[in-house]
Amino acid sequence: MPRPPIDFWFSIGSIYTYLAVMRIDEIARRENVAFRWRPFSIRVIMKEMDNFPASKPAKLAYSWRDAGRRAAAYGFPLRPTPPYPIKEYELANRVAVVGAFEDWCPAYVRATYRRWFHDHAEPGAEPNLGDSLREIGQDPDRVRARAEADDVRAAWRAATDEARALGIFGVPSFVSAGELFWGDDRLEDAARWQAGGR
Amino acid sequence: MPRPPIDFWFSIGSIYTYLAVMRIDEIARRENVAFRWRPFSIRVIMKEMDNFPASKPAKLAYSWRDAGRRAAAYGFPLRPTPPYPIKEYELANRVAVVGAFEDWCPAYVRATYRRWFHDHAEPGAEPNLGDSLREIGQDPDRVRARAEADDVRAAWRAATDEARALGIFGVPSFVSAGELFWGDDRLEDAARWQAGGR
Repeated sequence: MPRPPIDFWFSIGSIYTYLAVMRIDEIARRENVAFRWRPFSIRVIMKEMDNFPASKPAKLAYSWRDAGRRAAAYGFPLRPTPPYPIKEYELANRVAVVGAFEDWCPAYVRATYRRWFHDHAEPGAEPNLGDSLREIGQDPDRVRARAEADDVRAAWRAATDEARALGIFGVPSFVSAGELFWGDDRLEDAARWQAGGR
Repeated sequence: MPRPPIDFWFSIGSIYTYLAVMRIDEIARRENVAFRWRPFSIRVIMKEMDNFPASKPAKLAYSWRDAGRRAAAYGFPLRPTPPYPIKEYELANRVAVVGAFEDWCPAYVRATYRRWFHDHAEPGAEPNLGDSLREIGQDPDRVRARAEADDVRAAWRAATDEARALGIFGVPSFVSAGELFWGDDRLEDAARWQAGGR
């Protein structure tokens, strides 16, 4: 019987989510596990916690440096320093919800992150959004309209409520056999927990 | 020529500092690097950042669970859940400053953490403080008096100012050949950066 998937909770707009989306397919193959991509609003949850990364300059500067070191070690680029925080956060992530409905979420998220972290073009805004959707064979006008629909907005809010109920407070997070793991640097641990290696 | 030591910045009272103090000697041997133990007040710096871990219950609950998983994997115990935050933070850490002057800082820090994480006895308070000092051959009355001296208080404040100037915002942190690493899970990276492996 196949094992249930590990939920991969993320928001486009997070620095370390880039590392996870670039690595997750390889980890899935290596550890023989599946991931279900779950976009939600970490901004809503962090606001509830009074946690505003952009107002902590030392920590933010460190995050870019640390993520850049790790991206270099993994072999995919991060050109310092992308615009942050992103302005069209809601739209960028509601498009990911559409992608989760229609089965192109991972391709879209990677495409938009590449444009953000390599070209410094913000997710959810032009030219990143249109170019990323065209690259993966989706019509930008259709998807942009779909991202405004009530069912997509409701799914986005419901995912955020579910994340909060799970005790999620940051991204990327992974819920593996009921166990929460936070951070790209816990991706392997989450996969192995599911595989029973703990 | 021996390489300069890596500065290990920490505060007694931090959850993840436990993992680092229990692992650091083994990493030093394995990577052939030296660490200089630098107690300072992360509380002062986090207060300046409006960052209060005890007011973020989801994140705090996760930290205990995650640190417990990792301690178990490393093979040293963490009995859930130690008292937190600790009340005698200042004294616990000024004793570590005395230890840094007198060359018994690592032994003291490990002894007091063991009593905190195994026996749930708070650092800086009795019976933890006296028992930890006696265990490492120090006289509690002498050390407690020394910890109140002006030069010890000045060194503790100066270390905090130095940490702030280095951009340190959390503990444990490591400064290796001018490069900042934050978190027990970056201890190996810090050691290898110094060794030139980057």
